[in-house]
Parts: sequence; C-alpha cells; structure tokens
Amino acid sequence: MAETINGGLKFEQRHGKSRVRVGRVWKLPNGSHFFAEWKVNVSLLSDCVASYLHQDNSDIVATDTIKNTVYVKAKECSEQVTVEDFAIKLAQHFTSFYQQVTTAIVNIVEKPWERVSVNGQPHKHGFKLGSEKHTTEVIFSKLGTLQVNSGIEGLALLKTTQSGFEGFIRDKYTILPETRERMLATEVTISWKYNYNSVSSLPVKPLYFSERYMDVKKALVDTFFGSPNEGVYSPSVQRTLYLMGKAVLGRFPDISSVHLKMPNIHFLPVNLSSKDNPEIVKFADDVYLPTDEPHGSIEARLSRVQSKM
Amino acid sequence: MAETINGGLKFEQRHGKSRVRVGRVWKLPNGSHFFAEWKVNVSLLSDCVASYLHQDNSDIVATDTIKNTVYVKAKECSEQVTVEDFAIKLAQHFTSFYQQVTTAIVNIVEKPWERVSVNGQPHKHGFKLGSEKHTTEVIFSKLGTLQVNSGIEGLALLKTTQSGFEGFIRDKYTILPETRERMLATEVTISWKYNYNSVSSLPVKPLYFSERYMDVKKALVDTFFGSPNEGVYSPSVQRTLYLMGKAVLGRFPDISSVHLKMPNIHFLPVNLSSKDNPEIVKFADDVYLPTDEPHGSIEARLSRVQSKM
Amino acid sequence: MAETINGGLKFEQRHGKSRVRVGRVWKLPNGSHFFAEWKVNVSLLSDCVASYLHQDNSDIVATDTIKNTVYVKAKECSEQVTVEDFAIKLAQHFTSFYQQVTTAIVNIVEKPWERVSVNGQPHKHGFKLGSEKHTTEVIFSKLGTLQVNSGIEGLALLKTTQSGFEGFIRDKYTILPETRERMLATEVTISWKYNYNSVSSLPVKPLYFSERYMDVKKALVDTFFGSPNEGVYSPSVQRTLYLMGKAVLGRFPDISSVHLKMPNIHFLPVNLSSKDNPEIVKFADDVYLPTDEPHGSIEARLSRVQSKM
Amino acid sequence: MAETINGGLKFEQRHGKSRVRVGRVWKLPNGSHFFAEWKVNVSLLSDCVASYLHQDNSDIVATDTIKNTVYVKAKECSEQVTVEDFAIKLAQHFTSFYQQVTTAIVNIVEKPWERVSVNGQPHKHGFKLGSEKHTTEVIFSKLGTLQVNSGIEGLALLKTTQSGFEGFIRDKYTILPETRERMLATEVTISWKYNYNSVSSLPVKPLYFSERYMDVKKALVDTFFGSPNEGVYSPSVQRTLYLMGKAVLGRFPDISSVHLKMPNIHFLPVNLSSKDNPEIVKFADDVYLPTDEPHGSIEARLSRVQSKM
Repeated sequence: MAETINGGLKFEQRHGKSRVRVGRVWKLPNGSHFFAEWKVNVSLLSDCVASYLHQDNSDIVATDTIKNTVYVKAKECSEQVTVEDFAIKLAQHFTSFYQQVTTAIVNIVEKPWERVSVNGQPHKHGFKLGSEKHTTEVIFSKLGTLQVNSGIEGLALLKTTQSGFEGFIRDKYTILPETRERMLATEVTISWKYNYNSVSSLPVKPLYFSERYMDVKKALVDTFFGSPNEGVYSPSVQRTLYLMGKAVLGRFPDISSVHLKMPNIHFLPVNLSSKDNPEIVKFADDVYLPTDEPHGSIEARLSRVQSKM
Repeated sequence: MAETINGGLKFEQRHGKSRVRVGRVWKLPNGSHFFAEWKVNVSLLSDCVASYLHQDNSDIVATDTIKNTVYVKAKECSEQVTVEDFAIKLAQHFTSFYQQVTTAIVNIVEKPWERVSVNGQPHKHGFKLGSEKHTTEVIFSKLGTLQVNSGIEGLALLKTTQSGFEGFIRDKYTILPETRERMLATEVTISWKYNYNSVSSLPVKPLYFSERYMDVKKALVDTFFGSPNEGVYSPSVQRTLYLMGKAVLGRFPDISSVHLKMPNIHFLPVNLSSKDNPEIVKFADDVYLPTDEPHGSIEARLSRVQSKM
Repeated sequence: MAETINGGLKFEQRHGKSRVRVGRVWKLPNGSHFFAEWKVNVSLLSDCVASYLHQDNSDIVATDTIKNTVYVKAKECSEQVTVEDFAIKLAQHFTSFYQQVTTAIVNIVEKPWERVSVNGQPHKHGFKLGSEKHTTEVIFSKLGTLQVNSGIEGLALLKTTQSGFEGFIRDKYTILPETRERMLATEVTISWKYNYNSVSSLPVKPLYFSERYMDVKKALVDTFFGSPNEGVYSPSVQRTLYLMGKAVLGRFPDISSVHLKMPNIHFLPVNLSSKDNPEIVKFADDVYLPTDEPHGSIEARLSRVQSKM
Repeated sequence: MAETINGGLKFEQRHGKSRVRVGRVWKLPNGSHFFAEWKVNVSLLSDCVASYLHQDNSDIVATDTIKNTVYVKAKECSEQVTVEDFAIKLAQHFTSFYQQVTTAIVNIVEKPWERVSVNGQPHKHGFKLGSEKHTTEVIFSKLGTLQVNSGIEGLALLKTTQSGFEGFIRDKYTILPETRERMLATEVTISWKYNYNSVSSLPVKPLYFSERYMDVKKALVDTFFGSPNEGVYSPSVQRTLYLMGKAVLGRFPDISSVHLKMPNIHFLPVNLSSKDNPEIVKFADDVYLPTDEPHGSIEARLSRVQSKM
C-alpha cells in the first residue's frame, strides 16, 4: 500500500478499530446454548490518502462504522461459527462493500470459555473461563486472495524432568553449567497458516477450524511431553520447538507453515550460602526460583517449500 | 501493634518480603512427580520501632533473610504439602525463631499448574497452566493463636440464561429496564476462614486443605449453575452470591465464615440504530457487548455466630 | 453493617459500581480549559438484605443507577472541583437521596493529566499524561459523619547514593552483607486522613485539596532526597519512611494520620564469575540488576493521638 | 535467515534473551550522578540449525551468556552513553565475537527516570519516574550494515477542543454524527529510522541520540497542540498524524523514515435519558465517558524516497 506522494515522500497507512468486543449466543431448540466471546481488531488498507494530505475525509470508513459492522455481522451468524469463519466473513464484507478498501486484515482473540460439567454432565448453558486462547488472523484482498492463520496464545507447559542443555558454546562470558536434568517451562505462542487461498477453496465442514485447533493443540502437547510414563528427553528448547512444529506440519496437510515462539521460562536451582553457612540451601532437583525476567527467547518458522509451476 | 511514641504520636508498622517465588518438586520412587509453584508474601509484626525512630536496626529481620527462609522451609518440606501447610510452617518459624516477632502474616498464591493427560492417561511429570488460583492467608501469633484462610481468585463463570433483575428502586436516575432474561457473568473471588485456632487442632490428614479447596470450588460452581439441564434462576447477583456462601457454610462444618466478591461483569444487549436505519441491530438475546468497565460490585461476608462460653 | 439473620448466621454486605470513568471539562470565557479524568468506585452500605435472603430487590439501588448518578453529579459541577470535592458530593447524594443507604464509600483515582507547555507557555487546552496519581477515599454516613482521605499512587523515587543498611539481625539464614552505599528505590503509596469530620467543617477555599496534594507530595520528595547537593543519608527504608510521615504530620495540621507503603525495590549489585574467570563483572557501585520480584515491603501508619474530651 | 532443510521444508529461526534489566550509574568527581535503567532484548540470527535438527548444541550462544554479556558491556561503558549507543555496542559485540552470528537485533526500553529538583535546584543524585519511554531498535550484520531506530512509547496527549471529524463515508452501518467539536486523545507510539548505515558514519557528538529524542518529542507535541493560545484544528487523527510525521522528517535531515501509531482514544459524549426523563444528562461539551475499548487505530509510515546512484 506504499505510494509516492508530493515532496518525494513515500507513504503507507492503515486504519481500523481495535478491541471490539462481542459475545454471541446460539440457542438450540433442545435448550443447549453455544457461546463465543471475541475481541476483534479490523485493519483496512484503503484508498483514503486524501484524508492525510488534504483534510478530505470522503474516502474514510469511520472506525465507528467498522465497529457497528462487527455487531451486524455477528447478528447475521444465525448458526454457530468458528472464530476463523467470523473473521473471513468480516474481511469479505469490508473489501466488497467499500470500493476504497483493497485489503482487510482481521485479528480476533477468542476468550476461552469452556462448558462446565455439573455432576459429571455437560451443562446446557453454563461456562467457565479456561486458560490458553484461540486466535486468528485473516487477510483478504479485493481480488479474492485469502490468507487464514490460526493460533494459540498462552499455552503454558512445564515438565519437571527429561530436559537438559549441554555442549553449547563456552567462552569467557559463559557461566551456565551443562546439565542433563532441569525443569523445562514455556508459554507457547503459535500461529499456523492454512493453504486455502480463496473463499471457494475453504472446507465446507461446519466448525472445521475449531476441530483443527483442538487437534493442533493436542499435537503440540503430546510432542512436548512424550508418553505418560517415560516422557521424552529435550536436549534444548530449540530441538523441542522444532519437533513440535514438525508434528503440526506432519499431521495436517492443509497447514503450510507454522511459527512457534517458546520463551525459556527459567526455574533457577536454589543454592544459598553465606560465609558462616556454606549450605543454607543446597539444590537437589527440588527447590527452584521461577522467574519471568529475563527469559530465553526462541522462535522459528517451519514452512513447506511451495512447488513452483 | 499500635504504640504511642514520643511527640504524642501513635505508630503502627509492619515489614516483610513480597513476591517471593518458589517452585517445589517432589519425586516419588515410581517416577511420579508432584509440583507446586507459590508466590509468597510474608509480613511481620515485630518489635523494631527503634529502626524507625533512632536509626537502630538491631531488631530488624532483614527482608533478604525472610526470603532466604522461604527457600529453607520449602527445602524442609520433604513430602508434598498444601499451600496452607506451607504458610503455617513459615508463620510458625518467624514467630518462634525471632523474639522480636509477635505475629506473622503469610499470604500465598499458588499457580494453577495441572497435571496433563496424554492419550487419556495422567502424565508422570507433565503440567499445564490452568485458570483460577488457590490462595491462602495464615496469621499466627507468638502466643499460638492461629487463623487459616483459604481462597480462590479468578474463577470466571458465565451463564447464557436463567438470570434476571427486577423490582429494584426506580427513581429519576434509573434507566436500566427490568428483565427476566439476561447473561450473568462474574469473576468470583472468595476467601473462607477455618475454625482451627491452634496448630494442634489442625486436621492430620495429608493434603486435607487441597481437598477442601476442590470441594468448596465444586459447591460454588454447582450452586451458581444449578442442574445441567434446567439450571437455576438467579433473580440478582446478590441472591446467587448468598446461596453460594450458604452452600459453603452448609457443607463444611470446619469453615466458620466466607467472604465473596462477585463483580457483575456486564454483557450489554447490542441495539444499534441511526436516523435512517432504526434497526441496524435489534437485540434478540443473541449479540452482546461484554465490558469490564464499569462493573457492578457485590460482596458479602457470611459467618457463623460464635457461641460464647 | 453486620446483622444476625436466620439460622444463626451473621451477614455483612455492600454493593456498588466500580471503574466508572468520567471526564469533565471546564471552559473559561478567556479560552482556558480545565480538565479532570476520574475512575470512580462507589460502595453503598444499605438496608437491602432482603435481596440476598428473599429475592426481594425492592431496596436495591441498581448499580446502573449508581453509574448514571456519577455522570449527573459531574454535570452539576459547573465550576472546577477537586477529586475530593467530587467524592464528597457523590457520598452526600447517596446517603441523603436513598433512605436505604446508611453509608457511602467513594474511591476515586484521578488520571494525571498535566497541562502542556508549548514554547515555554502553558497551553490553553492541551494536556499530557504524567506519572503518579492522586487518589481519594471519602466515607460519609447518613448521620453526617465524614472521613476524607487523600493519597498518591505510583510515586517512584530513586537515589543513587546516600543509602545503607547495617546492624540488622544476623542469624543462620542471613546472607545480605552490611553496607553504607547502595541504591535506594521505592514506589511510594500514601494515604492521609484529614481531620474534617463533617461537611460544614470543610475548608471553603476552592481547590483546597489539590493544593494540599501538591504540598504533601513536595514534603515527601524533599524528605526522601534531602538537599540538592548533599542529599540525606538513609540508614533504612524504615527510617526514611518514618521521617516522610513525620514531615507530613509536622507541616499540615489538618492531617491527622498518614499511612505509607514503601516497597524496597532492589537494585542488586552485579557480580559475575565462573571457574575460569573469577571476575567477569566485579561490582563497583556502577552496574545493577533492578528487580521487582521479590521486593521488601515496609509500611507504617503514624497518627496524632486524639485528645479525648 | 531462511534455509531449506531436509524433507522439503524451509526453516527460519532466531534466539536470544528478553527482559534483561540493567541499571548503570555514572558518578562525576563533582558529586553529580547520571543514571540509566534499561530493559534489553537481544535476538541473534545465527548458524545454529543443527541444534534444531540434530540435537547438536555446539553452535548455540546460550541465552544465559547473552545476558551476562549485557552486564559486561554495561560495565565497559565507563562514560555515560545513550540507549542507542548501548544497543549498537551490544550488536557489534555479538556479530564480531561469534562466527555463528550473522545479525544481531537489539531492542531496549529505557525507564523514564528524570532528575528531581529540590527547592528549584536539580538534585545531584535524586531521580523520579516520569511517563513516556525512550526505545531503540538496532540491527547490525556481520558485514557491517547498521540500522538505528529510535522511538517513543506511551506519549499520551489530549486536547479538549480544536478537533472534529466530518465528511466521511455514510452508509447503512454509519451512526457517528459529524462534528467540528470533540475531544482528541491518543497515546502516540512512534519509531523513526536514522540514515546511518555503518558504525563509522555515526555522529561523534556525545549523547547525540538523547538530544534528538528530546527534539523529536518536542516536534510531535508542538504539532499536535499548535500555539498555546489558539491551538490548531484537527480535522481527523489521520491529518494530525501526517503533519506530525512530516514535521519530524522536515526538521531532522538524518531521519529517513518515521512510523506513527495513534489510536483514537474515545471520550464519548455523555447523554442519558429514560422514558420518564428524557434529559437526565444532556451533553454540552462538558461530561465525557473515556474508554480504551474499543479504540480507533490509525497508523502510517512516511519515508524519504531514496535516491539511487
């Protein structure tokens, strides 16, 4: 969206509405309710440079109008939809309804409301907030090009053994001892890209993307932890991250790339000593100091190589 | 701890260490690991007024020493303990070890790590972060007087029906319509007080307080939602809060009082209209605007009347 | 507000509205604008127990009505008022307008908008957000008893020298070395109570409480830092806190008590060593690791002893 | 850094350390102290793919080592440096010291500690926390290519008049009325890029980047508010953002591009009515409801067109 303007300057811009919150309830005749709560960000790439250069607002879609539209479109979803479906619907609207809008970028975070069980039975209209969040980013152009990304935020995982870190570079700034036994904790942020390039190529199965979300999460968790009894040894966050990404690409052919961020959240061994008392606390894989600051940052993207035709 | 000092002034003080983070792993011979992560606050009421008045630090327990002690005591817990057990152990230490310390107040928040399941089987050393948190506050005096409070933070509950609000005061500032059909959402903060007044009166059953925590949470959730198929009608947050508190006192004879805070987190009906378009969106119990700001605040304490002897 | 209810239970409750945000602009004929932004919490102690016990809402002031009233009262302030004035006005309203309301507790945090200067001249309608916040808590009863508290939140202060800590208790858990040279950093939270017990006894001077707020802040800052060239030695956070509280009581006769919380925010000396390199970094009062977690917690209340008549 | 790996996959990765906090004090012989507190993120693009693919850690710079290095380099700064200087120094180190590291990306946020004045005189060693933050991002490659970005975070500005929004697209989803009189509030996030492409081309003047930072901030504030008495009319956030960016490029020839994010933080006019009372509150440019959620999002980048030679 960069364009050259007067005075030899290049100009790129976007506008939209952020943090539009919407709750949507669907009520089945049998009394079962379904519910979603979304926080929606809409960004429009549109031909409205005149508003910046000449005080001419005639090509601006007001951000208040963008917000209203989110509610209109939520209303139109008369049957339960996934967060991805809703983002696609919004992006289609803005690019088709406004001649000025060339591309719409819709980001949504879904609040993790989970159906409660009472006395072992799923409750028909009761929900409780869970932890990690389902996210999506949809990019849709006036020409029909679609990109659907889904993701997870805040998936905090920890294992109390089967992790080590050895053989790294040792130099005059290196203090960290090598180890084959440590805690491993992280908060996974992941996004993956589907290979659907147009609305017509999307799966028709209802709630398809919700199912995929659950399946990807399971692949990540299973790979991180390994089998219930033995687990799996992690020689580095890097290695574990790579295997998690590979598991996702390996299991889901319609996912073309995956981006993983896995901070190494440190659980420092606690050793305390003083001159008089050299062993106030001596670490024996038992007492840790957890800290968020600083943390290691490890991230990677793994993609299928697109065959060129 | 108020005392009158020179110049006709009254003086009260406390000091301690906040946000001491500790992780504790217990490893069973069969390979099963148990794990707790705590954020500990210790406050001491102690005879150290000279440090304020005369620059004499000789009665101060350094806050760094307090922090070290948290790790020493965590180390000493060679078998799995509840967060309440740990708080009691700490409070006992500070009041017995230091002649200056008359009372110790220990607040701990436990991070909600939950054992994961892989392929339907509990993992021996894998954990995932959940949502609501187990808290405790223990107050222990040099004379042996004990108070044990437990609590829950961040228990967010929502039901999509079976809630209304009618018959409240209407005056010239009242706009809210009466309704028998609305969303009800809250984030419960609760603390309850046990009737154990001394260390010797505490239950001996291992992990007793963790079990109670789960049971209290179940009582709250069950009362809030009602039966899985029908639910239960809530005529006000006030009424629902009261029934939840009563359920806790009713089921658990060793709980002597309960304090509940239940903000009314509003899901506003979405109605949108303009001069040209009176029904852009017309609410039909389907599309809501969730908001945290402002929110209703409802809180109450329900206590057994102590019989005097 | 505790009352005994059926079943041998004691019951206390309050309700209200939290996080009500309001902005108020006052425009003078000369083009100068004044502006305040408040986040208001109203809590009512009121006779509405029936709503808890019997589903009878007829004595409830709806929290939505409370919110509306905040805006009505802001509107009524046709001339600039302090945050304390506004809290008092609100508290008076709720206790006089509703027979059910026996006491109103109003807490307000004012956003620290400060008038900007452009080219060295104060701007007539331009504001920029500052840092620490002015707070108030007003408690007013139907009988006319008034309590006015003011406070400051988030006043972060740091000095790079003139601080030490020596002579504290040394025992087997003590590691901290004694020092006469360290950083001292804190984030002051203070509240002070005025001795006005009724609305009629309040000062009539417009914007009185805003002036006091500035004066108290100056007293705190001056005492914490000492003279611009020499500073003043702090032998402990305790001592510095006490002198700050005493300065406030000493300078302002209408303040009857002051409560100070001054976490000791640690700037740890950085020393790094390894087996091969015993002096990777050797501390020389130059490089520090700042940390918020854990932090020392020191708090105290200093009050004039009320003479009894 | 993308490379094709076995299995027809493309792989990109980076690792580093985040939230490394460091405080640095410089003490002049005359007793004046200077102080900076930084939160440092280091990201390395390096040849360590084997750690992901083959459990071979021999090319990994441990994130703990990265952290240690931050302290070593802070120590080496024996004279006061700007946050940009420090980021450049770090980036140079990692790319020259490690053969594996091809590019270093260093992001730093400086805490806004400001020298206090006591009795109108600057204090020699006393500091108080201010509001908006100075940020930098430096990207440096082994080949010597340098990119220096500076920025501001959290610059919250508000004006009570001289703002309107008219003439935008009206359609069936439009409700917002046109206006020539409204509040305008935003929290500016800006980053700008200097045109220094190598270390040797950097300005030699000490503290050059700190001066530029202050000057850019002044340009933004002056342009946003206009003259102290009259102000300047803003016909849209878009227009004001553009003029602010243009002012920066216009005044500072060594800045080659500027990116501005200016959320439109809404102050909604308060109008309240009920059936019985159509004018509970009627808006007259006096009482507002400030809200962060939702907010308009407007962002743009303005760059000089590079002349090619």
